[in-house]
Amino acid sequence: MPDVPLPFSRTEYADRLAKTRTAMAANDVEVLFCCDPSNMAWLTGYDGWSFYVHQGVIVGPEGDPIFWGRRMDANGAMRTCYMAEADILGYSDDFVMSTERHAMQDLARVIAARGWADKRLGVEMENYYYSARAHAVLSEHHAGETTDATALVNWQRAVKSEAELHFMGRAARIVEKMHDRILETIRPGIRKNELVAEIFHAGIWGAEDEDGRYGGDYPAILPLLPTGMDATAAHLTWDDRVMEKDAATFFEIAGVYRRYHVPLCRTIHLGPAPTDMRAAEEAVIEGIDDGMNAARAGNTAGDVARAFYDVLAKRGISREGRCGYPIGLSYPPDWGERTYSIRPTDETELKPDMTFHFMPALWMENWGLEITETLRIMETGPAQCLADYPRKLFEKS
Amino acid sequence: MPDVPLPFSRTEYADRLAKTRTAMAANDVEVLFCCDPSNMAWLTGYDGWSFYVHQGVIVGPEGDPIFWGRRMDANGAMRTCYMAEADILGYSDDFVMSTERHAMQDLARVIAARGWADKRLGVEMENYYYSARAHAVLSEHHAGETTDATALVNWQRAVKSEAELHFMGRAARIVEKMHDRILETIRPGIRKNELVAEIFHAGIWGAEDEDGRYGGDYPAILPLLPTGMDATAAHLTWDDRVMEKDAATFFEIAGVYRRYHVPLCRTIHLGPAPTDMRAAEEAVIEGIDDGMNAARAGNTAGDVARAFYDVLAKRGISREGRCGYPIGLSYPPDWGERTYSIRPTDETELKPDMTFHFMPALWMENWGLEITETLRIMETGPAQCLADYPRKLFEKS
Repeated sequence: MPDVPLPFSRTEYADRLAKTRTAMAANDVEVLFCCDPSNMAWLTGYDGWSFYVHQGVIVGPEGDPIFWGRRMDANGAMRTCYMAEADILGYSDDFVMSTERHAMQDLARVIAARGWADKRLGVEMENYYYSARAHAVLSEHHAGETTDATALVNWQRAVKSEAELHFMGRAARIVEKMHDRILETIRPGIRKNELVAEIFHAGIWGAEDEDGRYGGDYPAILPLLPTGMDATAAHLTWDDRVMEKDAATFFEIAGVYRRYHVPLCRTIHLGPAPTDMRAAEEAVIEGIDDGMNAARAGNTAGDVARAFYDVLAKRGISREGRCGYPIGLSYPPDWGERTYSIRPTDETELKPDMTFHFMPALWMENWGLEITETLRIMETGPAQCLADYPRKLFEKS
Repeated sequence: MPDVPLPFSRTEYADRLAKTRTAMAANDVEVLFCCDPSNMAWLTGYDGWSFYVHQGVIVGPEGDPIFWGRRMDANGAMRTCYMAEADILGYSDDFVMSTERHAMQDLARVIAARGWADKRLGVEMENYYYSARAHAVLSEHHAGETTDATALVNWQRAVKSEAELHFMGRAARIVEKMHDRILETIRPGIRKNELVAEIFHAGIWGAEDEDGRYGGDYPAILPLLPTGMDATAAHLTWDDRVMEKDAATFFEIAGVYRRYHVPLCRTIHLGPAPTDMRAAEEAVIEGIDDGMNAARAGNTAGDVARAFYDVLAKRGISREGRCGYPIGLSYPPDWGERTYSIRPTDETELKPDMTFHFMPALWMENWGLEITETLRIMETGPAQCLADYPRKLFEKS
C-alpha cells in the first residue's frame, strides 16, 4: 500500500467502508458511485480542488474503493488516498470540456471492466458535481439499473469518531482566534475587505495546542459579513466600502482543520445597539439555551427547533425555516452535511457525537443578527458547544 | 427600478440580455433557465454565496430577467440585481433539503404563472448546480419541452467589454501584489499555511490605481501550491508542514476584482534549481512566446496550442491535454468560462478582447512547473499579457 500521510487510521477508513457497504445492502445498491467531494474524502482520504471536473469514488461489492478522475488528478489521488495504484484510475484530457465525448462514458467502461456492468448502480442524484448531462450519459452507457443513492454516505458521516472530534476541537480553537482578530481589527472607517484579509489570515494561520502549532484549511463557505440593510439578506460576501458607525455586521465564518468545520457566527454593532436588536439578542440567547437543553441523545432534531421557536413565539418574533444542520468534513459550496435539518418537522433521532451548527439567525426588516453555536450531542445531558466564545451581540465604538 | 450599486451600467446589462436573446433564438430556446452563478451575475448583477441551494435566472421571451431562489436569497437579489421587485421571486424554506418536495416544482409553477408553461425551456444540462434530480423534477413539471442550453450564455461572455477589461486590469494589479508577497515571505522553514495566510491577505487587501485603493474578491479556485513530488499533481491545496530546501513549489493563484479573475502562476525553487527544470523553464518560456504570437484575432485557439506544442516537441518534452481556457467573471468551483479550450483540436476563432488563461504547465515525474499568463486578444498583432510579472522560474535560498 502507498505510504501516504492520511488524516485518519486505516482502521477508521475500513470502518467507514463497512458502514457504507451495510447501507448499500439496506438500500439495494450493488455498486455505489459518489462524486460528493466530502464523501470521496471521507471514504478514501482524497483531497484536492478537482471537483470542477467529473470524478468520484466507486464502491463495489468487494475490495477497496476506487478513485476515478481526470488523469492529472489521479496523481493527486496517489498522494492523498490509501488505495493501491491499481485502484486509482485516470481518464484522458480529451474528455474534459468536450462536446463530443463525456467522462461518464469512461466511467461506465471502468465499471464494466470490473465485471459490474449489470449491477444496480447507486448515484447521487441530488448533489453538486453530478450534472443532469452526467446522469443522462451514465444511464445510457451502464447496462444495469441506476438508482438514487443521494446522501447514503452523508448519513454515515453523522456520528463523529474520536479522531474527527479531535479535528473539530482544533477547528474550534481556530474560529475563536478568527473572532478575536475581528474584534481587534473592526472600526468605523476600515474598508470591509481589509477586515476580510485579517479573517482569512487568522483562519489559515491556525492555532496551537499541547502538540504545537497547526494550520487552518479553507472553509466550504467563504466569509459572509453583510452590514446594516445588507444583513437582511443571508448570503452576501463583502465589498471594499468603509464600515460606518451605527450599523451591525454579522460574521458567518468557520474555523477549519483538515477539511473539518466548526462554524460560529457573531454580530458586532459599531456604536450602541438599538433596543430592538438588544431584545432580539435576548430572545436568541434564550432560544439557544433552550435548544441546547433539548439537544440530547434520544431527542429529535425537531425537539431542538421547537424549543427555539417556542422562545421566539413567546417573545413575538416571527421566523421560519431551518435553524441548523449537521456539520463536519466538507468541501465547497456548502459546509452542511445535507442529511437532517434542525426544523420542527424533522424527527431524526439525535445520537451521541452527532455535531451540528445550531443556527438561529434572525434576518429582519432592517438588520440581521447571527449568534450561533456548533454543538456536540453528549452521551447524557444537554449538548455542548465545541467553541468557547462569549455568546452575545458585541458593541464597538 | 431599485437603487442598487451595480458593477456595470444598465446599458451594458441591456446589451447582455439582447445578445442572450439572439443566441436563444438561434438555438430555438423560448425560455432560458440559467443556474450557473457566473451567468446569473453577468445577466443581472446577482452576487451572493447562495449557489449551494437551487436558484437561477429566467430569461423569458420579453421583459427583464427574473431572479428565482430561496426566499432569504431573494433579499440578496434585492440588494444586488437591477430588476424590480416583481421580478425577484423567492421560495420557502420547506423546499430546502427536503425529501418530500423539490425547489424545481416551484420553478415550474413560476414559469407557468408567467404564461410560459408550453414554451421550449433551455436548461444547463452540463453545469454545476443543475443536479440530475433537479432536471428530472423540472422535466416532469414543465409542460413544454426542455432542451440543452449548456454554455449558451457562457459563449456570450467570451468577448469582454471595456468595463470588464477595466475590472480585469484591477485584478491583474492584485495578482502581481500576491506574487510579490509570496517572494517576500517564502523561505525554508516557514509552514506552508502561513504562506497561504499571506497570499489571501494580499489578494483581499487589494491594490490601488489613479482612482484610489480597491479591494480584492475571492477566487473561484483557492490557492494551489504543491511542492516537490506533490507538484506532479495538478490540484492540491496546502498543509501545515514546513517548507524544505531543494524543492520547487508552484503557485496557481488569481487576482480577483468584483468576481473578475486574472490567474497567473509562477514557480519558486528553494535553493538552486536542477538542470532539467531549467531546461523545462526555457521550453515553457519559448512556448509562451510562440503561443502569444499565434494568439491573434482571426487565428484559432488551436493555432495557439499548436505553436506551444511545437516548441515542446522540438525540445523533446511530452505533454497532453488543454493548455488554456477563457477567463473572466466566475464563481466556485472553476474560474474558467467553460466554452473553448486552448488545445490543438479546437478551431474556435479568436476575436479582439477575448481573454484566456494560457496555461502551459508541466506536471512531470518528479516535479511540476507552472509559468502562465492571462492574455487579451488585440485588434491587431500578438496577444498582450494583462499582468506584468517576470516570466521565469524563481529561486530563493
